[in-house]
Amino acid sequence: MSEEYFPSIDKIEYEGPETDNHLAFRYYDESKEIAGKTMKEHFRFAIAYWHSFCNENSDPFGVGTRTFPWDKSSDPVDNAKFRLDAAFEFFTKLGTPYYCFHDRDLAPEGVTIHDSEKNLIDLVSKAKEYQGETGVKLLWGTANLFSHPRYMNGAATNPDFEVVCHAAAQVKAALDATVELDGENYVFWGGREGYMKLLNTQMKREQDHLGEFLRSARDYGRKIGFEGNFLIEPKPMEPTKQQYDFDSATVIGFLREQDLLDDFKLNIEANHATLASHSFAHDLAVAAERGLLGSIDANRGDAQNGWDTDYFPTDLYDATEAMVVVLENGGIAPGGFNFDAKIRRNSTDLEDLFHAHIGGMDTFARGLIIADKIMNDSDFKKIRYGRYSSFDDGNGKSFEEGNLSLEELRTFAIEAGEPKMTSGKQELLENIVNRYI
Amino acid sequence: MSEEYFPSIDKIEYEGPETDNHLAFRYYDESKEIAGKTMKEHFRFAIAYWHSFCNENSDPFGVGTRTFPWDKSSDPVDNAKFRLDAAFEFFTKLGTPYYCFHDRDLAPEGVTIHDSEKNLIDLVSKAKEYQGETGVKLLWGTANLFSHPRYMNGAATNPDFEVVCHAAAQVKAALDATVELDGENYVFWGGREGYMKLLNTQMKREQDHLGEFLRSARDYGRKIGFEGNFLIEPKPMEPTKQQYDFDSATVIGFLREQDLLDDFKLNIEANHATLASHSFAHDLAVAAERGLLGSIDANRGDAQNGWDTDYFPTDLYDATEAMVVVLENGGIAPGGFNFDAKIRRNSTDLEDLFHAHIGGMDTFARGLIIADKIMNDSDFKKIRYGRYSSFDDGNGKSFEEGNLSLEELRTFAIEAGEPKMTSGKQELLENIVNRYI
Amino acid sequence: MSEEYFPSIDKIEYEGPETDNHLAFRYYDESKEIAGKTMKEHFRFAIAYWHSFCNENSDPFGVGTRTFPWDKSSDPVDNAKFRLDAAFEFFTKLGTPYYCFHDRDLAPEGVTIHDSEKNLIDLVSKAKEYQGETGVKLLWGTANLFSHPRYMNGAATNPDFEVVCHAAAQVKAALDATVELDGENYVFWGGREGYMKLLNTQMKREQDHLGEFLRSARDYGRKIGFEGNFLIEPKPMEPTKQQYDFDSATVIGFLREQDLLDDFKLNIEANHATLASHSFAHDLAVAAERGLLGSIDANRGDAQNGWDTDYFPTDLYDATEAMVVVLENGGIAPGGFNFDAKIRRNSTDLEDLFHAHIGGMDTFARGLIIADKIMNDSDFKKIRYGRYSSFDDGNGKSFEEGNLSLEELRTFAIEAGEPKMTSGKQELLENIVNRYI
Amino acid sequence: MSEEYFPSIDKIEYEGPETDNHLAFRYYDESKEIAGKTMKEHFRFAIAYWHSFCNENSDPFGVGTRTFPWDKSSDPVDNAKFRLDAAFEFFTKLGTPYYCFHDRDLAPEGVTIHDSEKNLIDLVSKAKEYQGETGVKLLWGTANLFSHPRYMNGAATNPDFEVVCHAAAQVKAALDATVELDGENYVFWGGREGYMKLLNTQMKREQDHLGEFLRSARDYGRKIGFEGNFLIEPKPMEPTKQQYDFDSATVIGFLREQDLLDDFKLNIEANHATLASHSFAHDLAVAAERGLLGSIDANRGDAQNGWDTDYFPTDLYDATEAMVVVLENGGIAPGGFNFDAKIRRNSTDLEDLFHAHIGGMDTFARGLIIADKIMNDSDFKKIRYGRYSSFDDGNGKSFEEGNLSLEELRTFAIEAGEPKMTSGKQELLENIVNRYI
Repeated sequence: MSEEYFPSIDKIEYEGPETDNHLAFRYYDESKEIAGKTMKEHFRFAIAYWHSFCNENSDPFGVGTRTFPWDKSSDPVDNAKFRLDAAFEFFTKLGTPYYCFHDRDLAPEGVTIHDSEKNLIDLVSKAKEYQGETGVKLLWGTANLFSHPRYMNGAATNPDFEVVCHAAAQVKAALDATVELDGENYVFWGGREGYMKLLNTQMKREQDHLGEFLRSARDYGRKIGFEGNFLIEPKPMEPTKQQYDFDSATVIGFLREQDLLDDFKLNIEANHATLASHSFAHDLAVAAERGLLGSIDANRGDAQNGWDTDYFPTDLYDATEAMVVVLENGGIAPGGFNFDAKIRRNSTDLEDLFHAHIGGMDTFARGLIIADKIMNDSDFKKIRYGRYSSFDDGNGKSFEEGNLSLEELRTFAIEAGEPKMTSGKQELLENIVNRYI
Repeated sequence: MSEEYFPSIDKIEYEGPETDNHLAFRYYDESKEIAGKTMKEHFRFAIAYWHSFCNENSDPFGVGTRTFPWDKSSDPVDNAKFRLDAAFEFFTKLGTPYYCFHDRDLAPEGVTIHDSEKNLIDLVSKAKEYQGETGVKLLWGTANLFSHPRYMNGAATNPDFEVVCHAAAQVKAALDATVELDGENYVFWGGREGYMKLLNTQMKREQDHLGEFLRSARDYGRKIGFEGNFLIEPKPMEPTKQQYDFDSATVIGFLREQDLLDDFKLNIEANHATLASHSFAHDLAVAAERGLLGSIDANRGDAQNGWDTDYFPTDLYDATEAMVVVLENGGIAPGGFNFDAKIRRNSTDLEDLFHAHIGGMDTFARGLIIADKIMNDSDFKKIRYGRYSSFDDGNGKSFEEGNLSLEELRTFAIEAGEPKMTSGKQELLENIVNRYI
Repeated sequence: MSEEYFPSIDKIEYEGPETDNHLAFRYYDESKEIAGKTMKEHFRFAIAYWHSFCNENSDPFGVGTRTFPWDKSSDPVDNAKFRLDAAFEFFTKLGTPYYCFHDRDLAPEGVTIHDSEKNLIDLVSKAKEYQGETGVKLLWGTANLFSHPRYMNGAATNPDFEVVCHAAAQVKAALDATVELDGENYVFWGGREGYMKLLNTQMKREQDHLGEFLRSARDYGRKIGFEGNFLIEPKPMEPTKQQYDFDSATVIGFLREQDLLDDFKLNIEANHATLASHSFAHDLAVAAERGLLGSIDANRGDAQNGWDTDYFPTDLYDATEAMVVVLENGGIAPGGFNFDAKIRRNSTDLEDLFHAHIGGMDTFARGLIIADKIMNDSDFKKIRYGRYSSFDDGNGKSFEEGNLSLEELRTFAIEAGEPKMTSGKQELLENIVNRYI
Repeated sequence: MSEEYFPSIDKIEYEGPETDNHLAFRYYDESKEIAGKTMKEHFRFAIAYWHSFCNENSDPFGVGTRTFPWDKSSDPVDNAKFRLDAAFEFFTKLGTPYYCFHDRDLAPEGVTIHDSEKNLIDLVSKAKEYQGETGVKLLWGTANLFSHPRYMNGAATNPDFEVVCHAAAQVKAALDATVELDGENYVFWGGREGYMKLLNTQMKREQDHLGEFLRSARDYGRKIGFEGNFLIEPKPMEPTKQQYDFDSATVIGFLREQDLLDDFKLNIEANHATLASHSFAHDLAVAAERGLLGSIDANRGDAQNGWDTDYFPTDLYDATEAMVVVLENGGIAPGGFNFDAKIRRNSTDLEDLFHAHIGGMDTFARGLIIADKIMNDSDFKKIRYGRYSSFDDGNGKSFEEGNLSLEELRTFAIEAGEPKMTSGKQELLENIVNRYI
């Protein structure tokens, strides 16, 4: 690399829980084995190109506060290349094995579709070289179908067919890029796929357009050799009043309705789950229990601020509950944990971006250790699974298998008399969690 | 009827918009025709037995404030009969054609299942007589599977099979009662079907139990001759932290997953929709656009209080938007509008219950009139449907029909160039709504 | 004016409720008298310079969709002048008597404080001419102390004294501008006066700095002859996690603590009130009942989206309840109703900005008519004030006057026996409101 | 004590962090010293009589699930005495030094005021004996002014003067009881002091009544020798739509307006703070920084369920942030930490109540240890206080002292030039907190 953009920062190393070095990992020890896998294999951490290298921390009330040393040319394509230098320097210093991007993060939009495609191809070529040199890989690619004014009424769900076509052109190029870079997944986040006003909207028609759009993208992806998962990322609202991919349950229902379950899974973002009135673990579990947990966008919301705050994840409860679901799921691969999070507007020191990622990786590493202990050293499994033992055999099992009629169930009720009261042991469980934190 | 419980109140009549009589309808004129149906046919208004005749307006911070003149015996079955007298007096004076009940509203639980069944049969017999005499009909019946302590961990989703059996016994009896009373629908509201703590819960297993339970209830209902719709009523939370029937989209996804779409539709409650971060009209539209709008629980929430306030519906915007959906749906029958609403804790005058229902009926009647005008007298249809005209023929139509590949869409995009910007006309639409209110 | 920026739009006129002209007022008839004042006197409507002429409708997920024909030069000061042309053309065509601005709306920031001051003076001079020609007046001025990166940690509450000084320089210039333009009020909205993280914040110390800052601004304002009200605009959150000026009650408590009640009143914004879990009318009433209702920012939030949506106000319930408070307050002057609202991102037609303001003005005009009828033609006053009649004389009055001890009150309780239950008549009141809408 | 109500439970002892005994403390070691005080002195833990001994865990959707072995008589006064036996057995086994009660928790309401007073005196006498025998003390007493139907429109703010008198009688008796039992504080929680509908409410008049009521209670308390703090407990909503004591800032503003700051402080409840969109620590800090932190109701809300869930406190982040405030406040005495929390509806095992309290006490004990380390072993103080160093001397200090004019501040700004950008170090701080958890 020509220029060093984080000159004061060395490669981040594991130094253990007692270190006072703020630029070291305290829990994330990539080769440590837990539950049969190394931490590196468990997490497959990824850096979000957009927040870390494109987002200047503007907000609706002010322009950006970060200045990017890689923005040094008047040519946006040149700057995109410098940005790529900086990104791979960062990936390498932090030691994260994956990254994720939108087409427009990697390369700027051109005047025409052809120009845009050319810009992307140029940058992809350079990224491919870097991947080869560093071993860093692409967890997933995606297309930004929400920032340009043309998408103000949606992309695949836009009432204007021409906009749908434009979105298709972008997705085609983004799929080409993802395949070229051996991306392991391809993500759809429905940026503005929703409505601002129900009264001017044909909701089902728009959703059917989305289904058709996804089928055509799926077909194209498979045709060009993409073998990974397509992922949909739920979000309930913002920027639109109501987004169609509200939450895990809604997206799964949509995929089933549109007959897309063979190729699509879910990319669950913590802050999107909490905006939908669910815990992060809830939305993970809804997907995981149906074999549909594809990947994770690791961040954190503020339950008292009703917008996507995209904090870095530092809550050990969230991380622990998430890791219980992931461990029960047998892991997250071929997905990973992507830090779709941004440093605060006033985090303007160069090392703040490192603090943020170190904190996030340590939080999940520690969550994994705690979850493993809860699951194996405590009464957790006895409490959770023991509650359902009446369905493990006999009439309960017969009911589960669909062999009992309503009348038969009633007969059993009469024979059994008033059921005993069984405590859910919630307070005990909460103490057990704290026992291992 | 033996005793009159609302002696000071006469039959409520239509007196027109200018009346100052607070005990008259200003808009609800049951025989007035709009869009090809009388108002009576449009609404099929129903009274919720539980709120109006069983709910003493206690809350978590205090005992009830209403005293029921029909609670005059020490025998709960006798009181249930007096309550029925009062209810039919009320139905008749108000002129509502339907009512709805839970098993335990109509008749008290006994010591054994047999006792409970006997109590219900007794009261059903008396209700049937009243229906014959008055012409008032049963919109739907249901079973209360949440108030008794045995259901503290859920009913059909209880981890204890014995509780599931007990719930089945109750549903069997409630189905028997509903059929005996020619009930037009049968409702499942998943009172405590959800979880209080995810860590002690096997969510999918519980949901599969619910599916199996519903199939057995469906089979029994069909066997005894029930030809109406089974309805599920979504609610996102309360009393549990997270209810499984979160919202319309979630319930539809569940029904599809469980292969129940042939027999089940949705009963949408306004306040439940708003608790789920949706507008009332949104949850109606999600169901209606899939042919799954079964019936409506007409009430109103307070978006600044995060519990089920169950206000009577008086918001003309909500009513208007709802009626647009209902009119586009071709009506609500065989469902209806059930006032699942309660007067305030401090509404202790006898006539307050009448004010509340009169206000609710007038609000919807007026909403119907307004919706009809918006749809037929304004630019509404042009704005709403005109937006999608590019899909009505040509390539857009071909896309809708699934005949275009991603590459073809890209080619169209290149040919068309940058799409034009098309205003959503949101402010104009909002002015149009106010134009007709 | 050199160029016409809204060439297709004529002066908006009153045409009455039945008009189908979407570019006419249906209720706002400026010379119509209600409750002793003309509508023009009641409302003193103002246009928000920032939303209508500076806001391109970008959001955190995309760049702006509006293009401003007045941005035609490469020199920002020239563009500021063209923008002023456009603004006064708009004011005049709409017929609104007032406008409001931030310093940076009117004139761009320069490289130095002197440059910025000079730019502002230039534009103020031109604005003054326009005011003279058109009769349009300045309702209030303010300084933008939140958009520039230097304010990322707050302005008056910034932990760095130098930033506080910079904010002071801006306020001085903005006060000079306001006085020069005969502005009737001066507003402080605490953009980033709050915290992002409590742990790194000395909250009280920051609040005391704010108090001191306001005192110095007040002193300067009075010194240069400003005789209007200083106004603080409450907002609970966004952009910061927690803003110090949370709501009316908090701001009033702060003003009292800081001894600022003689010079400061409140500028209540509807959407800020609702973000704080209050109704618009609530926050108005809290201020009005203490003689502290200074002015109103008329817009509307979305209770299901937890950010400042700044919709134009079109809800007749909100407007009616607000106008009841304003009428009881004896009016809003020397404040007014400022449309701190923005058209939607996809409202890209030139006339959309007119539709939005027409709808907002008509909504309040109609709210005034309705409120007047409720207050004078219905039982409203009897219900509201009659409830408190036991305090109008006798022991109740004596209690109000502070003359009764706890023991005396107990004695009265024993003598009186159990109090009667008195209905709050909430459902009747809601029907009365609908009676007049 | 005659009968043992928790026969299977021994006295709870400290066994250290590694214990697997769920009925032992892991962190709460009452004689351990931190920051100059023992843990017992730091916390002054109290048991909430109502939740633990009176609340059968009913909710709006079902009757209670707990059965109380002490409810064994048909005479409510006898049962109240058995309940007292059980309570003191519990206090003693758990080792908590304090308890808190409402008048109606301790003794049932009678038919007349005299009867109620007599019942209370009887139970107070018995409680006094128990206090003498066990050393357990009364942290605070209060009167339940919200459960009885007469208070449906409020107590001190009721529109009916007779109800105000009745409330006064209750407060007098509750103050007598508190003094008799050497209660160290007296609490007012404004149960229904707020409104259900603004339109029928004279808000300021009601608030002035509340002020007068509190002054008369204060005067009576001082007259009979009460020397402790009077405390107001903020809550924003529920059961009313809008409670007057919304949050810390609102209550402090009210106390200042009503000239009650000399005698009143605040009792902050975690779940009430979070219902008001504040963090627990925020509302503590607002009070503490003004010398008004009186006592704490230690529980926890669910930010995704908009009602008072009253979970037991188990979140280490909340506890740590709270303890930072408490340590900076120099402790909580003469207040304490009262567990105003309830076990879940399905926590029906006898030991669940112990698990809950053990978890709560351990959480705060651990929060104290962590807070102490953050404050003394980390860069926390340097980060927090160092941010404000520009105000510690020179012009910044002069500004703090009120000696600088707006013009002078401007002059400094011009001299200083553009301020440097200073990171808030939020991510680093969050890592530091996790470093010590």
